[in-house]
Amino acid sequence: MSRIDRTHGSGGVSTSGLIRDIFQKELSNVYLDSMCDSAIVPGSSRLAVTTDSFVIRPLFYAGGDIGSLAVCGTVNDLLVAGASPEYLTAGFILEEGLDTEILRQAVHSMAESAKESGVSIVAGDTKVIEPSDPSDPGLIINTAGVGFVDKDFVLSPSKISDGDSVIISGSLGDHHAAILSSRLSIKNNIISDTAPLCDMISNLKKEGIELHAMRDVTRGGLATILNELSDASGCRMLLEETSIPVSPEVSSFCRILGLDPLYMGNEGKCVFILPRPDAERALSIIQKSRYGECAAIIGNVSSTGKGVVIRTAIGGEKTVGPLYGEGLPRIC
Amino acid sequence: MSRIDRTHGSGGVSTSGLIRDIFQKELSNVYLDSMCDSAIVPGSSRLAVTTDSFVIRPLFYAGGDIGSLAVCGTVNDLLVAGASPEYLTAGFILEEGLDTEILRQAVHSMAESAKESGVSIVAGDTKVIEPSDPSDPGLIINTAGVGFVDKDFVLSPSKISDGDSVIISGSLGDHHAAILSSRLSIKNNIISDTAPLCDMISNLKKEGIELHAMRDVTRGGLATILNELSDASGCRMLLEETSIPVSPEVSSFCRILGLDPLYMGNEGKCVFILPRPDAERALSIIQKSRYGECAAIIGNVSSTGKGVVIRTAIGGEKTVGPLYGEGLPRIC
Repeated sequence: MSRIDRTHGSGGVSTSGLIRDIFQKELSNVYLDSMCDSAIVPGSSRLAVTTDSFVIRPLFYAGGDIGSLAVCGTVNDLLVAGASPEYLTAGFILEEGLDTEILRQAVHSMAESAKESGVSIVAGDTKVIEPSDPSDPGLIINTAGVGFVDKDFVLSPSKISDGDSVIISGSLGDHHAAILSSRLSIKNNIISDTAPLCDMISNLKKEGIELHAMRDVTRGGLATILNELSDASGCRMLLEETSIPVSPEVSSFCRILGLDPLYMGNEGKCVFILPRPDAERALSIIQKSRYGECAAIIGNVSSTGKGVVIRTAIGGEKTVGPLYGEGLPRIC
Repeated sequence: MSRIDRTHGSGGVSTSGLIRDIFQKELSNVYLDSMCDSAIVPGSSRLAVTTDSFVIRPLFYAGGDIGSLAVCGTVNDLLVAGASPEYLTAGFILEEGLDTEILRQAVHSMAESAKESGVSIVAGDTKVIEPSDPSDPGLIINTAGVGFVDKDFVLSPSKISDGDSVIISGSLGDHHAAILSSRLSIKNNIISDTAPLCDMISNLKKEGIELHAMRDVTRGGLATILNELSDASGCRMLLEETSIPVSPEVSSFCRILGLDPLYMGNEGKCVFILPRPDAERALSIIQKSRYGECAAIIGNVSSTGKGVVIRTAIGGEKTVGPLYGEGLPRIC
């Protein structure tokens, strides 16, 4: 069994073999091992439920792969809802002809990221479809996530208030630039930021930091997400361009290709909006957390006006809208 | 916006438009409308979590479509785990060029099936990929489901015992035959059995029927599923061929094409294994429930030996193994 064929999607003997040899071997836990179509897991308090499909190309890239991404993306969606991520499901859509070793590597990465995030992958499903490019069969992974939210923890754009600070947890554009570099076969040191933000967000909660809103900064980039928060809160976001962290490598890459880091996708970055008195302490907690060393306070909230405005390095102000058009296809 | 293009997968303005115009319009509920990446839902007791991806072709067929299937398939997976289905997530993987009206119809069917099943679709995600056949762009839907299981309700193959009865909730092969008829452009009256089995299973529970095992009979067919239950329980399943319900139309169809209904996929059928003293009463409850009118007691369990054995119409006995090979590709 070194290549996926249609029998792996039949629900018969070959499917069982694939589950046993790859998924169960890599992801084994008491719920998944029961081999039921549904996982029965103990529950309590409020649930958070989310889903994401991952269609990224290439499947493997500097700093991550479709497997780590499929776990981190969904874990981060739960985290920014204020939930403790607990359980994931995984739906695999495999293209006929896929090398089984590629699948194994991706599933192994899922297991590693799940371990780091403290989540269990408790149910799965496999389908096989024809490859869109028979010379390069790929795969798609859907993950859904379930987490628990403390009853007294409420995040809402309506909490965003005049004077709040805006913190970004690290440099922008790394994931987008790494994927594009790989596609264009450009050799550089850019590495995707694919990561689960459990440590950072749980540290903020443990230290009692009051959060008004938090969002992971993925497709659409920071500009799109802050515009959504501006729309939802009725407040204006004012950013300082010089405060926004972008690595020198990504900055050069963007200048050459005419890209704007504010619209580039990330996979391990979070934006926090919180009361100004807590901002410095929150920043320090984030910077001491895993994946947060480059965090920065990048602006503040004003109840006068709407939209996202950026004060540029030379002192001008420009309005920054949400992403129009397609961005980078299949970036996640 | 009458065709899907890559901008619909960007996470930017076009994605928002698609969510607003189609998904939110069709699926609106208080959790989905909050437009967060995760849905926060109230929880209690034990959770059941499941997932399934749906890659069926054609997208629309006699008796159902990819939308109704995506809901019913996951709802039934929760039901046979003994759970009351509550929440679904939906991940859409759309091929560029897909007619938006096709998507709308599929999402509408999801809404109808969700309503019938009493579930809320609480979170979603959209990605766009290149079509594998540009002349006929399609879509894939992943659903994950969350349900609650009563603390004292336990189903397990280990409960399957000597003398237990085997009940099938209706005729076999309808879904498989309907899909194949559509692909081969054969005109007949065969209609897929795509349906949620909530009514049937909740009636059995309400009436206090003791169930040892239940499974929905999908890919791989009844033969594969009973072999799995035989393996897990260490018991032999003895079926009476003349008792197994197959509609006259499906029976003729199978004879012409050399197909065996025992290996054909269904999307609204369940097999129940339960103590013989309860069997007649359970059968009557199933027959009075929605989608159960053709239910039948088809065999019994023996602790002597293993595997699945069928007593044929002419009195012989044959061993029936699980499905080998591919079955019908993209049947669900």
